[in-house]
Amino acid sequence: MKATIERATLLRGLSHVQSVVERRNTIPILSNVLIEASLDGSLRLMATDLDLQIDETVPAAVDQAGAITVPAHTLFDIARKLPEGSQVELTAAEGKIKVNAGRAKFELGTLPRDDFPVIAEGELPTVFELPAEILKQIIDKTRFAISTEETRYYLNGIFLHVADDTLKAAATDGHRLARVTVPRPEGAEAMPDVIVPRKCVAELRKLLDEVDGSVGVSLSGSKIRFDLGAAILTSKLIDGTFPDYSRVIPTGNDKILKIDPKSFMEGVDRVSTIATEKTRAVKMALDRDRITLSVTSPDNGTAAEEVPGDYAAQPFEIGFNSRYLMDILGQIESDLVEVHLADAAAPTLIRENDKSPALYVLMPMRV
Amino acid sequence: MKATIERATLLRGLSHVQSVVERRNTIPILSNVLIEASLDGSLRLMATDLDLQIDETVPAAVDQAGAITVPAHTLFDIARKLPEGSQVELTAAEGKIKVNAGRAKFELGTLPRDDFPVIAEGELPTVFELPAEILKQIIDKTRFAISTEETRYYLNGIFLHVADDTLKAAATDGHRLARVTVPRPEGAEAMPDVIVPRKCVAELRKLLDEVDGSVGVSLSGSKIRFDLGAAILTSKLIDGTFPDYSRVIPTGNDKILKIDPKSFMEGVDRVSTIATEKTRAVKMALDRDRITLSVTSPDNGTAAEEVPGDYAAQPFEIGFNSRYLMDILGQIESDLVEVHLADAAAPTLIRENDKSPALYVLMPMRV
Repeated sequence: MKATIERATLLRGLSHVQSVVERRNTIPILSNVLIEASLDGSLRLMATDLDLQIDETVPAAVDQAGAITVPAHTLFDIARKLPEGSQVELTAAEGKIKVNAGRAKFELGTLPRDDFPVIAEGELPTVFELPAEILKQIIDKTRFAISTEETRYYLNGIFLHVADDTLKAAATDGHRLARVTVPRPEGAEAMPDVIVPRKCVAELRKLLDEVDGSVGVSLSGSKIRFDLGAAILTSKLIDGTFPDYSRVIPTGNDKILKIDPKSFMEGVDRVSTIATEKTRAVKMALDRDRITLSVTSPDNGTAAEEVPGDYAAQPFEIGFNSRYLMDILGQIESDLVEVHLADAAAPTLIRENDKSPALYVLMPMRV
Repeated sequence: MKATIERATLLRGLSHVQSVVERRNTIPILSNVLIEASLDGSLRLMATDLDLQIDETVPAAVDQAGAITVPAHTLFDIARKLPEGSQVELTAAEGKIKVNAGRAKFELGTLPRDDFPVIAEGELPTVFELPAEILKQIIDKTRFAISTEETRYYLNGIFLHVADDTLKAAATDGHRLARVTVPRPEGAEAMPDVIVPRKCVAELRKLLDEVDGSVGVSLSGSKIRFDLGAAILTSKLIDGTFPDYSRVIPTGNDKILKIDPKSFMEGVDRVSTIATEKTRAVKMALDRDRITLSVTSPDNGTAAEEVPGDYAAQPFEIGFNSRYLMDILGQIESDLVEVHLADAAAPTLIRENDKSPALYVLMPMRV
């Protein structure tokens, strides 16, 4: 294999693949990126952690076709430190790869391409397209609620499913739930319910920053593939059953608070300054249009702030985890948010309005 | 005590004092900032870790004089989160302090001002002034060489001493030495040799970013005080003997390399990509004007880069810790640096030229 590639092109490609590669691997080849040079003038870069695989094609001048695997983080670090505008020559021979650019010369150990594990996609019968903007929205408005508890592996991702003529994305950790509803894309009618793992979501979100237009999505019950132009991301899906979350979404909460999400969030942030790391509990007292946020900490003292709001139902008090509440409020883009309350122990519904694609459910805390 | 202060003024003052306060304290009052309101319209903020003390005075509208101590990090976090432009009302009574700003109200526990330990400066007979720019230069060009080994406590700071008509600042960790020589300021003639601790150096450097003009320095054999206008920093000095470092500075190194520090440093950075975390060793081969930097790692491979230089002495090879070498090269501001070499085992001298205030000594490594 012999190829020459612009440093910026190589760096961009490697920056995508290296973040899939785990820092520590017991299987040596999982530390490597597969580089495949084709005489049509392209370099294919591929990396995997056995669950998630990225496959990116970048332009290069190829003198001799071939394929080899190279330590991904080392090659990325080299590309990062090479002078801007330099041309990088990659020459593989006799179990080594030479990386030359200007006056700098590197020789790195390699592993054979045949040992590189490629995820077998199998058949992916469901195929549809989603505008990159919609996909970003789905991820941004749900990912914060993904559980990090490894024992509840079936909550460690975003649940995607179709319902009537909509596509729904949901994430929950048992304390809060986030759900986005978008129109069902053509081709998704018979889509199976799937759970997209957290790491795939994170890598996809990074790649989406560089994508305009549409993303191709193909999936089966066990794999999903995102086609982002130059890069293709393939992931195993989480093999588990996402709970029937719809039963958690309250429908009869009749105490409605309408409030500016920005001043609400800033108030919560301020009073929670004195909350202890352990509880993070903030109390909200609703009394007509007087919404009082407060925190009492035996160690630190007390904090209270009145936030103007619009509330006509019966006065009462309710407690929330301040961080969870702020996560949700941070997603609201309009200047008014609806908080649907029932009582101090019941799940609370938060949304911009009844037309907004995103809705959030937050469990209260005893305060 | 009752005072009103602009949020930005309070925040700036607290940002200085809170960084002196350690995150974990076994003595509760060391977590607190002393606030002293005077009817002349000022608030004095004071914090200490028993070795280092900051004392800053900021303007405020004072209704009722008084003094109290308040948890520093909590008050800083509150000030940080308060809306820009708000006025902060501080009212202390009955062991509590009320912090009110706009709609937000806090009540924090306090500790009596009489329990707050103030560092007794004693007499500080040596008094001189140093331009802030000079003091910055002294710190920036030496602090990276300060030892972090706690058992060698006498190396955990910058050594300041006068020699003839100069003031010298030196730091070393046994592997490298940095020394800056500046004209002796008036008043420093009889100055004792002192070692200024690392934490004092770090806090002083932060404060210097906001200072123009001159800094007043007063010291005895055991304490030092920096007068930076609104802020006064007082520190205990390290009670130990700094080694006679002048013997380490080579004077007879006759192999002179002149080289562009930027391309030298970039070359070292690049080849060290494949060095292992443990050794970080880079080899430099000098052969006439061909300077070859190289690293060989059994795990990762090899790297080499030729850097143009000006060298006429006998060809030889020498090894350095790449990070230490880069630390030094990063301090060179001119476009040429002199490297004075003797042999592969002897200390190497690095400096801009024989007129530059800073010089560096680097011990080689076996490669």
